[in-house]
Amino acid sequence: MGDSVTRIMVAVNESSMKGYPHPSISSKGAFEWTIQKIIRNNVSAFNLLFLHVQVPDEDGFDDMDSIYASPEDFKNLNQRDRIRGIHLLEYFVNRCHEIGVVCQAWIMQGDPKEVICHEVQRLRPDFLVVGSRGLGPFQKVFVGTVSEFCWKHAECPVITIKRKPDETPQDPVDD
Amino acid sequence: MGDSVTRIMVAVNESSMKGYPHPSISSKGAFEWTIQKIIRNNVSAFNLLFLHVQVPDEDGFDDMDSIYASPEDFKNLNQRDRIRGIHLLEYFVNRCHEIGVVCQAWIMQGDPKEVICHEVQRLRPDFLVVGSRGLGPFQKVFVGTVSEFCWKHAECPVITIKRKPDETPQDPVDD
Repeated sequence: MGDSVTRIMVAVNESSMKGYPHPSISSKGAFEWTIQKIIRNNVSAFNLLFLHVQVPDEDGFDDMDSIYASPEDFKNLNQRDRIRGIHLLEYFVNRCHEIGVVCQAWIMQGDPKEVICHEVQRLRPDFLVVGSRGLGPFQKVFVGTVSEFCWKHAECPVITIKRKPDETPQDPVDD
Repeated sequence: MGDSVTRIMVAVNESSMKGYPHPSISSKGAFEWTIQKIIRNNVSAFNLLFLHVQVPDEDGFDDMDSIYASPEDFKNLNQRDRIRGIHLLEYFVNRCHEIGVVCQAWIMQGDPKEVICHEVQRLRPDFLVVGSRGLGPFQKVFVGTVSEFCWKHAECPVITIKRKPDETPQDPVDD
């Protein structure tokens, strides 16, 4: 039934409420869904590829109360972002280790939807899993952009996993 | 890792070129992809639910050279459609039997996208697989309607499997 493993790319991001290193509700949900419904106990047949895309701020600052005065400060900022990203990815890598699924994880910077599609093109996973807050058009205009863009443009099948209703926070734009 | 099996609904239709009982290229591709990439050799962990939706013609006729003059003729027409549908489903059921995957298959009439979403609501599969011709907006205005509608409206995760480029017929609207 095919000799090689099935390679699943999972796009993950941090919680908008708790911040790093906590994963967003929808990333965690998409990951757990993939384990429970697809991989199940057939752990040696799958590899997971975790991609975390960090969005650079327009002005290079991401803390309102921080001052960056020299190029060295910006280097430290990037270093700090990188470390935060690694701690986020550790959550998923540790879970895979517990379960016994081989995985890889890496961080990129840029527009998440563009970077995800680019990484799909580069790494050719069998499919892509994207979590989604599952908001309708009346809650926020911009939501669903990443999953819809990937569904239309990624060069592999895409499965979008919406949050469960009972996991939706008070403000559904949070995640 | 979850006690119950993963239930996958697969929407299938007939070939537009070869007609019944031949499955469309995209239905066949979506099914084979599911076997190879998801189910693999873990056959006892999955059930497949094959749904075939038949579109009734507006005027009740589906052959240009047929004349139906009485209610009995229409009944025979429906009967004939049903038999054709069963022969289409046999292809998938037989493949599952060969592989050892438990499956169910059934026929409904109506607008495919509406019926598929309704059946998802009724049967609550873990996810839905839909084949797609993978045409862009410039090839035909109406294509991709079923998969896009299901992606937006079905109450379960949806995975769309596009045909491989080398399986695209001369007229890409054919399937």
